[in-house]
Formats: sequence, C-alpha cells, structure tokens
Amino acid sequence: MCRFVIYKGTSPVQLSHLLTRPCHSIINQAFDSRLRLDHRRPINGDGFGVGWYDSVHDEELGSQPCIFTAVTPAWNNINLIRLAEKIKSPLVFGHVRATTTGSLSLDNCHPFAYGKLMFMHNGGIAGFHLIKRRLQADLSDDVFNVVQGNTDSECAFALLLSKLPDPKANSFATRTLQQAMLDTIATLNLYAEEAGITEPSLMNFCVTDGESVVATRYISSRHDEAASLWFSSGTTFSEYAQGGHYRMAKADKRENIIMIASEPLTFEKADWMEIRTNNMVVITPKMNLLQIPIVDKFYVSPSDPASLNRDTDFAAAKGLLSPRKALVPVQPRENPTQLSI
Amino acid sequence: MCRFVIYKGTSPVQLSHLLTRPCHSIINQAFDSRLRLDHRRPINGDGFGVGWYDSVHDEELGSQPCIFTAVTPAWNNINLIRLAEKIKSPLVFGHVRATTTGSLSLDNCHPFAYGKLMFMHNGGIAGFHLIKRRLQADLSDDVFNVVQGNTDSECAFALLLSKLPDPKANSFATRTLQQAMLDTIATLNLYAEEAGITEPSLMNFCVTDGESVVATRYISSRHDEAASLWFSSGTTFSEYAQGGHYRMAKADKRENIIMIASEPLTFEKADWMEIRTNNMVVITPKMNLLQIPIVDKFYVSPSDPASLNRDTDFAAAKGLLSPRKALVPVQPRENPTQLSI
Amino acid sequence: MCRFVIYKGTSPVQLSHLLTRPCHSIINQAFDSRLRLDHRRPINGDGFGVGWYDSVHDEELGSQPCIFTAVTPAWNNINLIRLAEKIKSPLVFGHVRATTTGSLSLDNCHPFAYGKLMFMHNGGIAGFHLIKRRLQADLSDDVFNVVQGNTDSECAFALLLSKLPDPKANSFATRTLQQAMLDTIATLNLYAEEAGITEPSLMNFCVTDGESVVATRYISSRHDEAASLWFSSGTTFSEYAQGGHYRMAKADKRENIIMIASEPLTFEKADWMEIRTNNMVVITPKMNLLQIPIVDKFYVSPSDPASLNRDTDFAAAKGLLSPRKALVPVQPRENPTQLSI
Amino acid sequence: MCRFVIYKGTSPVQLSHLLTRPCHSIINQAFDSRLRLDHRRPINGDGFGVGWYDSVHDEELGSQPCIFTAVTPAWNNINLIRLAEKIKSPLVFGHVRATTTGSLSLDNCHPFAYGKLMFMHNGGIAGFHLIKRRLQADLSDDVFNVVQGNTDSECAFALLLSKLPDPKANSFATRTLQQAMLDTIATLNLYAEEAGITEPSLMNFCVTDGESVVATRYISSRHDEAASLWFSSGTTFSEYAQGGHYRMAKADKRENIIMIASEPLTFEKADWMEIRTNNMVVITPKMNLLQIPIVDKFYVSPSDPASLNRDTDFAAAKGLLSPRKALVPVQPRENPTQLSI
Repeated sequence: MCRFVIYKGTSPVQLSHLLTRPCHSIINQAFDSRLRLDHRRPINGDGFGVGWYDSVHDEELGSQPCIFTAVTPAWNNINLIRLAEKIKSPLVFGHVRATTTGSLSLDNCHPFAYGKLMFMHNGGIAGFHLIKRRLQADLSDDVFNVVQGNTDSECAFALLLSKLPDPKANSFATRTLQQAMLDTIATLNLYAEEAGITEPSLMNFCVTDGESVVATRYISSRHDEAASLWFSSGTTFSEYAQGGHYRMAKADKRENIIMIASEPLTFEKADWMEIRTNNMVVITPKMNLLQIPIVDKFYVSPSDPASLNRDTDFAAAKGLLSPRKALVPVQPRENPTQLSI
Repeated sequence: MCRFVIYKGTSPVQLSHLLTRPCHSIINQAFDSRLRLDHRRPINGDGFGVGWYDSVHDEELGSQPCIFTAVTPAWNNINLIRLAEKIKSPLVFGHVRATTTGSLSLDNCHPFAYGKLMFMHNGGIAGFHLIKRRLQADLSDDVFNVVQGNTDSECAFALLLSKLPDPKANSFATRTLQQAMLDTIATLNLYAEEAGITEPSLMNFCVTDGESVVATRYISSRHDEAASLWFSSGTTFSEYAQGGHYRMAKADKRENIIMIASEPLTFEKADWMEIRTNNMVVITPKMNLLQIPIVDKFYVSPSDPASLNRDTDFAAAKGLLSPRKALVPVQPRENPTQLSI
Repeated sequence: MCRFVIYKGTSPVQLSHLLTRPCHSIINQAFDSRLRLDHRRPINGDGFGVGWYDSVHDEELGSQPCIFTAVTPAWNNINLIRLAEKIKSPLVFGHVRATTTGSLSLDNCHPFAYGKLMFMHNGGIAGFHLIKRRLQADLSDDVFNVVQGNTDSECAFALLLSKLPDPKANSFATRTLQQAMLDTIATLNLYAEEAGITEPSLMNFCVTDGESVVATRYISSRHDEAASLWFSSGTTFSEYAQGGHYRMAKADKRENIIMIASEPLTFEKADWMEIRTNNMVVITPKMNLLQIPIVDKFYVSPSDPASLNRDTDFAAAKGLLSPRKALVPVQPRENPTQLSI
Repeated sequence: MCRFVIYKGTSPVQLSHLLTRPCHSIINQAFDSRLRLDHRRPINGDGFGVGWYDSVHDEELGSQPCIFTAVTPAWNNINLIRLAEKIKSPLVFGHVRATTTGSLSLDNCHPFAYGKLMFMHNGGIAGFHLIKRRLQADLSDDVFNVVQGNTDSECAFALLLSKLPDPKANSFATRTLQQAMLDTIATLNLYAEEAGITEPSLMNFCVTDGESVVATRYISSRHDEAASLWFSSGTTFSEYAQGGHYRMAKADKRENIIMIASEPLTFEKADWMEIRTNNMVVITPKMNLLQIPIVDKFYVSPSDPASLNRDTDFAAAKGLLSPRKALVPVQPRENPTQLSI
C-alpha cells in the first residue's frame, strides 16, 4: 500500500504545500483503515522519497532531478520538513512506501532516477522472484548495473530504460516515453505468461523526463480492479482553512496545475477525477492532459458492462484502493490518440 | 498515542511471541482509526523500544536490564525481528512511540533505564515546557545528568529516581517503588498547580526493578477519562491459529503470566480486564496482582456515579483510549492496601 | 575532534565544491592520525550538518537558513551527495561531528538555527555537567525551550541567543553579534570560575545571521593552545587537478570568497593563514575581514614571548590541533577595532 | 578496507570483551593511516555487523545464528554497546565495513546468514560488475533470491551456498565447508578469466556453521600480496590494564580460545601470527587449528623465494594490509591435509 503524488505546474510549487503542510498529503493522511484487509502491516512507514526538477535552469547544476529519500517515516523527518520549506519545483514526484517486496533500505525508496528520468510505482508485480532473472537477462550491462536495491519496482524501471533508444538522452519525445511504458507492461506480461504466473500484477507506473509525465493505472486482469489513481487540475492549490486544509481552485479555463495521485489529496473529492482502469495518462510539456486506453488482452471497453464490475477485493486486500465515493467520469483535455501494444 | 506492553512470567517468554509474531502485538496492530481525532499524525511510527531482564542470572553480565531502541518503525526493524527470535526474558517492557513532545531520537525512546530500573510512559504531561525547569531544579546532580533526551517522560523518570532513597540500589521493596510513583505523581500535580496549568496530564507510568512492577492509570482530572490500561493473566500465551492469532490460556488457578497493556493484545477481549481510572496496579515478585486506588483530589470513588461518567473526549482526542467493548470489573488477586499520598 | 568550514562569497557556491568533491573537504579528509592521542575514538563519524542561506531571495521562502543534518557519516550520505549537486548558496556552514558530550542524535548535530541565525562550535566546555543548570537558569523561557539535544554546544548557542536584544530579529548589526559572542564567552568563564572548574574550555564558536559572520578561536587558558582555526580568501575556489584537488585562486585584489575552517582545506597550505589564539574573526556584510583580540584574563599579547609558547598538548590530546606547518602571520584586511569584554 | 574478527572458544565470550571494550578492537582501533593510499575514503564508518551462536542450546530458539547490523558507525551505536554487555557466545563473527562496492544499507552489512551458516568477506572481487550476471546464472532459484543487497561479498556467499550439497542442512562436515570454499574461489577465478579481468581479487572469506570455521587469506595473483590475516590462540583473553588494554594469556597447553582477525587486536603483536598468503585456515569443532595451502596457479610455495617478495602495493592501496612488524611463522596445530582444487 504505497502512495504517490505527481505535481506539474506552470509555476513552481513550494514542496511544503505538496508534502508536509496539507493534512491530506500522502504523508499526513489518516488513511481509512476500514478497507484494509492486510492487518499485519501498518501503513506507509517504510520510507519515502521525493524527486524534483529545478525551477530555474542553471548550467552548472544541470538538468537531472534531485532525489531525497529516507527510511524513517516522512511525517517526522526533520530534514524533509526543512527542505520542503526551502525548495520550489515545477515538477515533483512524491512517494510513501509500504514494503511488499524489498527490504527497508534507501536503495529501495522511490522515485528512482537515471540521467534526466524519474520513475515510481504503486502496486506489485506478481511472482516477481520467478521472473527477476529473465528480466535481468534482457537488460544491457549499463542498465543492469543501475539496479541497487531488491524491489520489483526498480527492476521495472530498469526494464523501461532498456526500452528507450537512449536512456541517457537529454530530452525525450512524449511519445517515446509512452511507447517505452507500453513496452514495459507488455514485456512484464510476457514474462508472467512464460512463468505461468496467474495472479494479476498491479502496475501503476509513472515516468518523467522533467518535461512530459506518463503514468498508468493498470492491472494484468480483465476481472480485478487496478490500484486507484486520480487526478485534479486547476489554477491554484492553496490552504483555504487553518490546519492544513488545501483546495484546488479553478480561476479560469487555463490549467496551471495538474496533480495525479494514488488517492484524492483534499477533502473536496469533487475536485478529483478517477483515471480509468487500464489507461495511460499523459501530461505533455505544454500541460495538456491525455487519457489513453491500454488496449491489450486485459482491456475492457467502457461500453462493456463488465468494465463497471471489476472485482475490488484483490486491490483492496493489498490496500491499494481508495474509496470511490466521488466517482466522476474523466474528461480528457484533448482527443487522445489510442496506441496499441 | 503511544502503546506499551508489560510481560511478567514465572517462565521467560521468547520476545517474538510478545512483539513480532502476534498480529495484535503493539507493533503489528491495525489500530481502529475511527476513534482518532488527531488526523495530522499517523500512528506509532516514531520509534520503539524494548527492555528486558536476563532469564538466567550471570554474575559477569550483572542484573541491569538490556534495552534495544530504534527510530525506524518496529514492524520493519530487521534487528528487532532477529533479536526477538533469540532472546527470552521473564520480564519485558515494550513501547511504541508516537511523538507528542520530543523529537525523533534514540534518546527519546522508552523504556528508559537507570541501574536496575526501567521506566516507560503513555500519555503526556500538560504544559510541560512551563514546569521543566522547576522539575530539573528538584533533581540531584546525578539524576539531572541522567536525562539525555527532551521528553516529558524521561524527566518524569528522573523525578521518580529522585524520590527513591537510593536509585542505584541493587534491590527495592515493592512498597518503595509504589511510594516513589505516588510521590512522582503528587509532585507533578504540585508543579502544574504552581504554574497555573489547568489541562489534565495523562500519567500512565510503569516502573520495574526486575522483580516488582508498578504501573498507573492516572489523569489529573475528576471529569476526564485517563488513557486506557488493561491487564490479562493466565498460564500460557501462545498461537492458537496461523497468522499470529494468540490467546491467553488459563490451565489452572495459578497465574504464570501477567500482562499489562495500553490496549487488549488479542482478539479475545474477554481475556482482558480494564484497570480502573486513577488506580495503581502492582505485580509483586511472587506474581500477585494488586490494584490500589490513588486517592487524591482527582480520585472519584467507584461508588460515586460520576466514576462511570468520565468524559472520554480528552483522551480519545489524543488517541489514548481503546474501545471499551469488553469492560469487565477488575478482580484484584489479594487484599490491596490503600496508600494515601 | 569536530571539523567545520564557513564559506561566504559574493557569488553562491555549489555545495558540492565545498563539501563532497574536494579531497581535502572536511568530509573527505584523511586526517593525520599522528597527532591524535585519543585512541579510543575514531574520527568524525558521529554525524554532520550543513546550513545555508538562499542564493536568491524569495518572499514565500523567507530568509531563514535551511539545515540538513544526519547521524550517518557524511562521506557516504547519498542525500547529501545529491543535494550538494543541486544547491548553491553565498553563505554556508558545514560541520562534521565527533562526539565528546552528547549522544548520536540529529538533535545534537551542528549547525543549530534559530530564526535567521546559525551557530556551530568546535571544542568543548570543560565540566559542562557542573554548569548546565546554572546556564539554563539564565535563559528566558523561549530560549530554554529551544534546546532539543544534550550538547554543551547547543546550550552555548542558547546562551548567545539570550545575550541578544532580540534573537528573533530580521537583521543584526555586525557589532551586536560580536558583543553577544564576547558576552557568551565571558559568561561561560564566569560559570566555570563559580563552579571551580580549572580545566580550560575550547570555544571555537561561529554565528551568522546570513549577512555577517563572527567566529572565535578561543581557550580559557593563558598557557594552553586553542583548537586550530584558519582562513583563506581569494577570487575563485575550483578544481585544478582531477581527483578533487581544489585551490583558492586570487585573480585580483578583490576578495570574492572568504573561507574559515578548523584546518586548511587544500594542499596549498600557503593559501591558508592561521587565526591568532584568543581572537575573534569577523566577516562583514561587505566582505571585509577583521581580526580582533579577545582581551580578558586569558589574553596574551603577540608582543609577549609567551604567546609563541602556548602548550599544544591539551588541544592535541582532544584532536583539535592541525599541524602548524604553514604558519603564516595573519594579515587582517582593515584596521580592526579592539573590543574589550 | 573492511576489518573482521572471528572468535571461537570452549567458553562463551561476553561480546563487549571482543567488540566494544578493547581499545584495539576492530571498532575502536585508531588505524595507522600512514599505510593508506586511498585518501578519499575515510575509514570504517560504513556500517558494521556482528553474528553469534547461542551459548546454551534452547530447542525453542533453534540453532541458527543471530545477526545485528547497523549503518551508523559501530563505536557510537548505543544498541551494540548495550547488547554486547548482555550477550555471550562461543562463536562470534564481527565485521566493520568500508564501502568498496555496494551502497550504505543494512542489506550490505556482513556477516550474511543462511540457515545455520554465517559468512563474511574482507577484500574485493575485481571487475565484479562484469561477472555478476554470470554468477547469478549459476545459482539455484532459492539461493538467487537470498541475495538482498548489491555487494560482491553477498554474491560470493550465494555462490558458496550453491557449492554445498544442502545449504539448509543442520550440520556440515568441516571438510564440506572447506571444499565449498575452494570451489567458490575456483569458480570466481574462472569467471574472471572468462571475462578477461586481469586485476587480482582479494578473497579473504570466512564461513561457519556454528561448529567449524573456514577462513581464507587469498589473492588471485602470484605477485601481489593478499589482504592481511592473523590469528592468536590462548587460554584467556582479558583486560590487563585500564583503558581497554587486552591480552591473550596462555595458561597451559590447551587452546581454549582461537581468534582470527584482519589485523592484530592487541598491542602484544607477539601474540599474533600471520596466516600465509593463499592459505586456508580451519578451526575444527574440537578447536584444532589447521593451515592448508590453496594450491592453484596463484600459489607460490614457501620454499620459493618469490613467496617472500609479493608486492604489497596493491593490497596497501586498498587499505587491506596491516604492518608486518610481528611476522612470525605460523605453527599449525596438527598435520594439515593438503587439498587440491
């Protein structure tokens, strides 16, 4: 039961407004425990990480992201609290970890970075120990040696890197990142099939190069529901009432801020729209938001009644489903191109 | 919202059976979040500690307790998991911390130790910053310099040490520990009165010398409820069903095991009895259990109907009240002597 | 045997050039162990800290410094390594700690901060446990409650705060900081005298408000040598040879960079000048450097031959003396005003 | 530049006498820095670990070792200091780590354990990134998934496990462990040859099952010297002078204690004998000590003058050579059988 948040804005956000001050941030949330079936694992205390890009380009500092991670809980990390008051960024990834695979170690904290790229994951790759070596065999030497920890997530990132023409490039076309993401999911599905793994994998992945963001809400199943994923957009994100109560305001038609998160980050659930299962969501450099179905054998068309009846028990048992009280149809911002994989 | 557990047995317990394996241990519990009003602070990830006495006396090793503490969450501490599988003890204090005052630091983790004594606290001393210097002024130089961290709890322990005739003694009469505990509470009440502090203090304290255990369920208020405190006793404490489901069994009249905890540690709530508010509970070296009213101006006699109507909002707001579904009158094991303070 | 470094420049420095990349930085130094008499304590692995001010003022971010501390060794702290590559600042305090008093805890890591002020210390206050309560009694309630850890250094900072007319002010005259520093030293000497402490105290202190820097090289003895303190100034500080070999270059008469450090930070010892014992060194907001004798009963005039014969054993035994191979007379940049205390 | 120590005794040792109290323990040593060429890496602060077997068998606790590891420096680890005062064991592995490969993480701390086995390493496998996948391909699924960290050492342990007929066995013949060790070295040499790696690997390995100990002093070179390895034996190991000065005493012919260490652990260097390069040293369950040449293409017979002229620069540059002031010929305790590989 990890949690993550993505922020992309035309103006930089002070990290504290995203991470440490809001009472509903991924760090401070008092999660609703009634949905939790996994009573042996307390929530979200197994480390965290935040990654961000500079708000002003400085030749000397370069354009790679900066990453701060810790194995102590985020809500009580004095360094995070101090840094969040001093750092602004137009593109932030935040992640709170609950171990499913992988030990408590900085090496296992998301987001992972390579060159200009950042990546994080919420979910779990089923039977990963059965496919790890198969995956490693497909990596180039460079990418193989990037992997420092022992999580399925970091290996998925390495696989995604291996799907890119040049993972060390200075810039990536949005479409290149989209295709690498689709290839990663397809390859993981292939490995699972070869290994005879029937349990579904929960693959909510996000990747960015500092310009584009590509995220997925995906499960390798036609019947089970994916881990939850929501987005919100507006003009300003600010505190409207003392005690860390934040709200997304929409002053005009322009979208200055887009946030994607594993669950709604404000009490105003109407501000949050759910991303459809087995869809990819893309934020372009120019702040357009696209939602694109991932059409493979696990895809169920929204016109198929079965799409409304996915079984939530699997994701809920893993603590990966937020309450769907505010289910609102997603309104993509432009005509999405449907990619097939 | 700290949690603690005390184990005293005629036979040593493997620490894992108390701490890491039971699904309802203070470490693994999935706490019922419906009672929590403090939505800004996640639960119980701010460090933990366990203290224990040797199961076999060894002249070279001495008779002081051993303490293991950490600032990372207990449920994922590989050292705790390993040590708990290898250590047995007849008297254990375990504590999981949620910061109220004091920073995240090993110096602030309970239990605290001095010579043969161990101490821990669940609750909070109201307006502590207003009385800290007054308290420090009352300590001997030796005891003053014992304090390493910045918590109210450690200062309360230092105060208790200063109430003992010889805090470095090799043994203590049970009654000596009881009196020091009563003196500590009385002195803290005096400081609060002098400083004009009207908010109640929650003083669930425990102290042991390895032989006797003295614990309190106490609040400096006639109207508010204290933080919860429960006990259970029996012959064996063991797993009756896979997945960490433990139960206290009572094979005969003899009490081989006594456990005191901030909330019931098994699903079998009938096994747990609530300790009355503003009472002291004592385990003697010979495993007798006494419950003794702390009769001061905050005491309300059980025969007074007001005793049933203490307001639970204060303690609940601090996350210090467990659900009272299994309220059972406490049956003290012998005729308690009532001490006045 | 702590180490510290101060950087103040007309242009911001990337923290990595100060802390992580130079082979002679306070973090990476392979200290000469031949001077060390304290064979029981390894060097400089007991935590570190770095504090800095923003290079560009941002109303939303405010003007207080940011502090990053850790209890793991600095040379292997992945967060420090990453942050140092991304942060630039015109005024930096860096500190590597070896515990003398105080436990291993973030609360005990320098620099300490309060409002706009930062403070750090290299040395030790003799018999501190004998004067701690006396010192605490002299603090205001506000300042008393600032102290989080258990070091002599943090208490000295609290004392300095109590010597300022308004420790929460937005700006301080350089002279106000100088006077507070002198008062702090004088008061600590008074406490020691009252308590009958005869061992000298090593008081190399530094304080800044983001504009001025005040540092001392001081020992409360006429006969023993103080902990070492050096400075260097120039136009650029950069790598002249691979492997982290840095040098201070002086392109013209202008002083763009002033560094003060517990020992020379480059192989070019000629670039480093020693600050005289029992002197205060001041960097003004306009980058003038003053050296001012601290004239009290422990002062020995440079014209007195005894000034050349201070006994180095005491400081060396504490690991606080760097080899004086490059002893060069200090050339203060302007006519210092001599303050008496 | 790691350090390790092995203790095996007929009586259990209190861990503090081995680890925390002696001024020359692997934790407290003030290493002679004059031999160090690697000036960029401070010494031995990158975590440590200790593993031990119970001194009394307890059916409930089982016979696997207990491991305690940390990423903060050992000399200041309050948990280690407390545990070492309370734990006794007849067979202890202690290890202090300086990172060469692998990040700062508990997963990377030695000793590593599997079932009844413990393993540690001092040295480095040359070009490990070039042979890691080759090594992994040779592991069984079980053993592959044992590896949690990213060090060459843990992979070498996994390889050794794969050389055992049953790595989960309850007991191992001494000779089985010896053969697995030889096979591990031979296989690593083979991988290096296949990958065209010419830099020598430093393979000082130790493995134990709680009964036998097998350690190697080995380098894959005919010309360079291996990392240092010493042993001492006697009747008692105790403090003869205040300040942590320990000595090995030999009261009679019986060997009650055998210690093997990366460098002499007392000032009495005459008590320590150097193990010959490219030899295996074995402690049998009955406390016999054998020294056995590892005869392969890198072996140089002691009768060959070249054996005295191995070049120490390579090992010294890695900080892995202790001063050979007390070079004493090793006197093996019984007629060793020479194994060929």
